[in-house]
Parts: sequence; C-alpha cells; structure tokens
Amino acid sequence: MRVIIIGSGAAGLTTASTIRRYNKEMEIVVITKDKHIAYSPCAIPYVICNEIPSFEDIIMHTPEEYKRDRHIDVITESEVLDMDSENNKITYKDKENNEIELTYDYLVLATGGSPFVPPIEGVDLKGVFKLRTIEDGMRIKEYAENSKSVIVAGAGAIGLETAYALKELGLDVVVVEMAPQILPRALDIDMAKIVMKYLEEDVGIKFILEKPLGKIVGDEDGKVNGAVIDGEFYGCDMVIMATGVRPNIELAKKAGCEIGRWAIRVNEKMQTSIPNIYAVGDCVEVVDLITKQITLSPFGTTAVRQGKVAGKNIVGIEAKFNPVLNAMVSKIGDIEMAGTGMSELGAHQNRLEVIVGKARALTRARYYPGGKLIEVKLICDMNKNIVGCQIVGGERVAERVDAVSIGIVKNMTCNELANIEFCYAPPVSMVIDPLALAAENACDKFKKIEKNE
Amino acid sequence: MRVIIIGSGAAGLTTASTIRRYNKEMEIVVITKDKHIAYSPCAIPYVICNEIPSFEDIIMHTPEEYKRDRHIDVITESEVLDMDSENNKITYKDKENNEIELTYDYLVLATGGSPFVPPIEGVDLKGVFKLRTIEDGMRIKEYAENSKSVIVAGAGAIGLETAYALKELGLDVVVVEMAPQILPRALDIDMAKIVMKYLEEDVGIKFILEKPLGKIVGDEDGKVNGAVIDGEFYGCDMVIMATGVRPNIELAKKAGCEIGRWAIRVNEKMQTSIPNIYAVGDCVEVVDLITKQITLSPFGTTAVRQGKVAGKNIVGIEAKFNPVLNAMVSKIGDIEMAGTGMSELGAHQNRLEVIVGKARALTRARYYPGGKLIEVKLICDMNKNIVGCQIVGGERVAERVDAVSIGIVKNMTCNELANIEFCYAPPVSMVIDPLALAAENACDKFKKIEKNE
Repeated sequence: MRVIIIGSGAAGLTTASTIRRYNKEMEIVVITKDKHIAYSPCAIPYVICNEIPSFEDIIMHTPEEYKRDRHIDVITESEVLDMDSENNKITYKDKENNEIELTYDYLVLATGGSPFVPPIEGVDLKGVFKLRTIEDGMRIKEYAENSKSVIVAGAGAIGLETAYALKELGLDVVVVEMAPQILPRALDIDMAKIVMKYLEEDVGIKFILEKPLGKIVGDEDGKVNGAVIDGEFYGCDMVIMATGVRPNIELAKKAGCEIGRWAIRVNEKMQTSIPNIYAVGDCVEVVDLITKQITLSPFGTTAVRQGKVAGKNIVGIEAKFNPVLNAMVSKIGDIEMAGTGMSELGAHQNRLEVIVGKARALTRARYYPGGKLIEVKLICDMNKNIVGCQIVGGERVAERVDAVSIGIVKNMTCNELANIEFCYAPPVSMVIDPLALAAENACDKFKKIEKNE
Repeated sequence: MRVIIIGSGAAGLTTASTIRRYNKEMEIVVITKDKHIAYSPCAIPYVICNEIPSFEDIIMHTPEEYKRDRHIDVITESEVLDMDSENNKITYKDKENNEIELTYDYLVLATGGSPFVPPIEGVDLKGVFKLRTIEDGMRIKEYAENSKSVIVAGAGAIGLETAYALKELGLDVVVVEMAPQILPRALDIDMAKIVMKYLEEDVGIKFILEKPLGKIVGDEDGKVNGAVIDGEFYGCDMVIMATGVRPNIELAKKAGCEIGRWAIRVNEKMQTSIPNIYAVGDCVEVVDLITKQITLSPFGTTAVRQGKVAGKNIVGIEAKFNPVLNAMVSKIGDIEMAGTGMSELGAHQNRLEVIVGKARALTRARYYPGGKLIEVKLICDMNKNIVGCQIVGGERVAERVDAVSIGIVKNMTCNELANIEFCYAPPVSMVIDPLALAAENACDKFKKIEKNE
C-alpha cells in the first residue's frame, strides 16, 4: 500500500505523520516543489524583524529526519506534471529533471495556495515581492537591508505583520488597502480601528485605505522606485504584494476531482469526489459553522486538523472535520488581536440580526502593575447565542477568544457566559473578566429590547 | 425601603452597588467592623513583597466615595450586636460605642469568614500573625522588616503567596502543611509537585509536609523565637497562621436563619430561610456543579457573582446563582497555577471513575523566544465529559482554565475539546493548543478502554 501526498505544508506533513502514527506498514511518499519543508510560514514576518533570530529556527524538520524517524519519503524540488486517477498514477519531474511515474493506493492533495498578485503594471520589477514561502521571506529580508522605504499592498494579517517587521528594520512603511479598514476579513471596522491607531501612532506606519495600488514604477535598472496610488506618486524601494492567496486546484482538476465554489470540494472525511483521493489544507473549501455556507479556511491550525482527519480515515479510523469558525490571532508589536466566528459585518451581509456586547477592561487588577487594556466585542444572534467574538489588546487575547470558540460550538448564550466562573487573582485577571463584562453588556441590550416589546 | 448589609467585603459591597444600579430610591446602609473597605484581600501578599507599591493602592473606594457617588451609607468600625428578625431590626455599636437600633425591609448577611487558628501552644505570642484583613497585611509587613525567618503554617494559596512574599523580602521561609501536598484543595498531588519543585529549587522555600505545627515557642519578652514540628525545634522570628478560614455564621444564628452543613443555607436567589434576609459571600454554602453536594466557595469572584444575584433579587429582578466549579488561579513568582471543577483526588473521594488526559507543551511556537512550559491535566468522567482541569505553567494559564470551565458547564467531551479550533500565531500559541493535546491524550485512553472491552 502506497500513499502519495502532494505538498509539504502543515496539511500534507500532518497527514503523513498521522498515517505513520497509526500504520507502520504503509509506504508514504511526499512530493513537493519546495526545497525547505516543515517550516512555519506564519513565523516568517517575525524572522524578518529579528524577533526570531534566523530562518533556520523556523524549519522544524528536514526530509532526512522524516525518512529516519518516520520512514516517510519526502521528494523535494519536484513538480507533479500529470494525474491519472483512473490508473491511480501520477507523473512528476524530480530535481534532476527526470520524469517519474508513481502509482498509489491513496493520493492526498495538499497543494496549498498561491499568492494572488493583481495584474498591475510593474509587478515584475526588481523589488516587488510576494510573501508565501521561506525563500520569499529570505529575499525580502535581504532586499530590505539596502532599502529605505516600502509599500505593502494588502492589510490582512500577513501584510500588517510584514509591514511591522520592515518598520522595525528601519524602513518607512506605507500600507495600501482596498477595503475601508485594515484586517477586513478578521475584524469589524470598530475593532480594526484600534489596531490601526496603534500601528499609526505608536509604530509609525502610514495607511491608505479604500484605494488600490494603481501601478508600480521602476527606474532604468528595472528596480522599484515608487508606486502610484489614486493618481498620486509615492516613492519607495520595495513593494510587498500581500493581496491574498488563491487555492491551488490545478492538479485536482487534472485528476478529475470535483471543484466547488472556491476550491476542491471534500466531504467530512476530507475525501474528494474520487474516493481514494483526499485533499487537505488551503486548497480545499469547508463549511462555515455559523452560516453553513461554503468558505475557505487558510489557517495553519485548519491544515493540521484536516491532516489528522485525512490521515486517520486513510488508515481506517473514522474521523470528521467539523465546520469552521475561522478563529485567528495575530500579534504585532505590543498589540494582540484575535477573532472567531461571525463578525458584525458578516452578520449584516448574511442578513442576520445580531446584538453586540462590548467591554473595555484591564487584564489584571487595576492596582496591579503591568495590566494591559483589552477590548472585547461579542456578537450574539437574536436567540442570545454567541456567534462571534473579537478581542484586541495588550495580552491574554488568544485564550479568551478560544474560550468563546468553545462557547460558540456548545451553543452558549450571553447570559450563560456572563455567569461563568472565571478564575481570579490580581496578577492575572480582574475580579470580573472582560468576557463576562461584554456578555453582561449584551444581556442588558436584550433586556432593553424585551422591555420595549 | 431600607436594606441593611452587614459586611463590607466584595459580597456586601457588590450587593449594595447592584441594588443602587437598579433602584435609585432604596436606602442602603452597610455596617462593617472594618476600618478600610473595598480593598482586595487577594492582593495583600503582593503588597507585602512590593510587587504592588503600597496598601493604599489596593483600596479601591472610601466610605465617602460610596456616599457621594452611590448614596450608600457605609458605617465602619461598628459591630452588630443583636438581630431581631421578627421585628426586622438590628442593634449595632458604632465606633463611639453608642448602641443604635435600625430597622430594615431587607437584610443582607455578608459577614465573611474568619481565619481558623488551631488552639496550639504559643499562638498568642508576639510575632504570630493571621492573614485576612489589610491591617493583618500591614502588621506582617512591618514585623517582617526586623525578622530573619518565618514559619508559615498552611500551604494553601494564601499561605504560599505569603511565603513567597516574605522570601522575596529576604527572610528564610519554612512552610509546614498537614496534607501530603501543597495546595491540597486546589490541585492534585502530581500538579502540586510541579509548583513545589519551583518554590523549593528556584525560590528557596523549605517545605515540611504531612506534619502539623506542634507548638510555637517564645522568648522571655513573649516574642516568637521558634516552633516545634514533629518534635523538632525550628528557630524563627515570625509565624503566619494560614490554616484556613471558617464562615462567620453567628449573626445568622441569632437571626434564626437556617444553617446548613458548613455555613448559612441559601436558595438560588441567595435568600436565607427567612425571606427578607439574604446572605452572600464566604458565610454561605453553595452547591458543587459536579458532585451536586454542598460545599464552600470562599473566592472573591463567587462573592461578586453572589452579590449581583442578591442585589437583583432584592430589587425584583430575577437572578439565580449557579452551582460552582470553584475555579481558582494563583501566580507565585514566575509560576501560574489554576484549577476548575473536580480533581482526580476529588473523583476518588466521590467514588467517581475518571480518565485523566495530560499534556506538557509550550505557550508559544517552539522557535519563538520567551515561550513557557505549561502542564495541563484534564479530568473526564466515563461518559467522556470533562469534569475538571488543572494547569501549571509560566503564562496564559488562567484563560485556558476559564475555557475549560465553559466546556464543563456546557457538557463538553474530550473529543469535542480535541477538535476545537484554537487560534494560532507563533508569538502567542502553538499550532496545537496544550488543551487540545491533553484532550487527545484522554481520547486515546478512552479508545484503549473501548478496544479492551
């Protein structure tokens, strides 16, 4: 029995390791275009700004280690050319340019996503970068050493983390974003404004919102020396295109797997429309827990959880991947931001009436040194069930969002959250947790509605 | 309408403020023995060791502020002498020793608890202290300035926090505890050992377990100069009796309120057996969520939540106090420890079979600097429902325990917790949260049991 896994990101390698954990016999072959495997793409911005000393630090395993410790063959720098799902066979080109055929019993597509770069003038100039792989990160860091200013296109988490990293290296940084807010997919505008205020005032990043990057301008050597935004020229030495990621679905198409609305369609077992082909990670589409609609979930955590589900099912252990909340967190400088479930904007877009509970409070007793402000936004449907939460603040943000994720999955109401027994000690919390305060605020609003009815 | 509240701790003052929040007319009188009100008793050890600069910092409001801002009369340094619940009347002695009668429409007993000091030889010597009030804290801090060594009797959270504080001030510290472990009510012995190892090896506190403090020995001036433990003499200049707290139920008895197994019996509304007398805080008994048995819940958070419930019911808003998990957290030096729900020991004592899931992991991606080890213990009943959790580690402990508290209240299984979508970014978490790892460990154990059956 042989399983071939295409792709060596978190999804592919977790699938491989999960299969090996439960089955010592199966032959496992991972084929990847990448040179470096098993690194954390989320960590790249932190290496750029030297919070993590080097790129080597974020590479967790080598292909040799996979072979030695887990009997998993990882074939790097190799591209899959052809898929023959009728005969359970693929053709790939290895790093010596040999074309090799390989049959499989199971195939796993973990082909990930590719940065989406809009087709504007100048994107091929020297000094324009995308940020996806560790090699991208290395190139950006090297080029930044001789640069004074950068324009980052896209104010999602990756764009902002990279903007912050380059600002830390001493560059002047302008972020340009088409949406009317930063972090448009993660936070509502009110919460995003808190983050933007910090990045503008405390970090010194400049923002241009509601404008696309028009074109990139180069000098006679073909090097970036500026960009045009809304008709205005901005000088810069570098441009980072953090304008989104698209699922890689070409191989799935070649294999004849059903493609859904956004990406490869899979069932709860992470199985494609072809029973012995599974797909995991950024290349598949998933179900949103709140709206029940199809969505994408391009997160490392999703990739890992999907890899476990696929791996278990391949070895015959039943496992299901649940609909997602798309919980996310980022830390940029001194500010931590996280969100889970539905946003207020998302609710409006889905024509779902919601009540919002808010609280602004400290993370420690107010007399205890070092407490940080955090702001909590809780989104409840009209049955008082919590459907979303966003938190921005100085510390202890991620775990609070995780706590709300548990509440959402278990159909908790704001009344229930207001009555939860949060633990308390002055150095680590307030006697009433900010989550409980936000829940109380939502309860008060429901009471007002009930009174008026 | 007049409500009299006896006691100015968190329970009494929260009741007062809650009543005022919803009712601007009612006369509210708080009578208290204390001189200082509205301070945080949990903060006292942190003032002793100068983590919080002064005792004034932990006093949040003065009686004058209560009068001015909330029209609440706080009568300090006054003792209630007599209760006449037939005629809705109390008699108290004010600080000028006048005996005053006062009638009420509602009475709230927020009489708290008193340190339990075992009747051993020498407890009245100079240099023996209990720790309950801010005045106790001031006396300990002052006496410690001229002391070189201290014996702390009792290794609960207050005892350990005080031991640490005095060690920080430069004293030699010995903690003596009758139980075979420290933190016997909060943690299981395996988790307590991690804390003890840190306090012994990194902080330098000495522990004597499974031994009572035999007697305290004084010099010719009546000052402590040592103590006898298990027949052996230990020299010291101070002794702190952190040997537990007993509910103050004398006034409730005088009023004719029903006393339960441990303390004042109340219903879900915090109402005693006498309908217009409520009781809140350390002087009442509550129901344990897991065992459904009567227990005590001497925590500031419980006091606050009970005060809100009593206050709302007094003004005619229905509110219920739920059974408790007795969630607790403490931070001592660099280590944070927290627990919620049932312990493994508690399960054995209640003859409840449980499965324990454990995990030891970092709080940040392993390549991200500053990550701290945390150890998670998850306790599940044989239906796989999570019934308890304990965590010990360097950071982000309290919120994880809170997340599990939500899970326990909402009947979450270990399988569900293993599949929760924890948010992830390298500076704040691991790609698989330690809680999910512990839940997976429990799931694996259940699978083994199912296989063998």
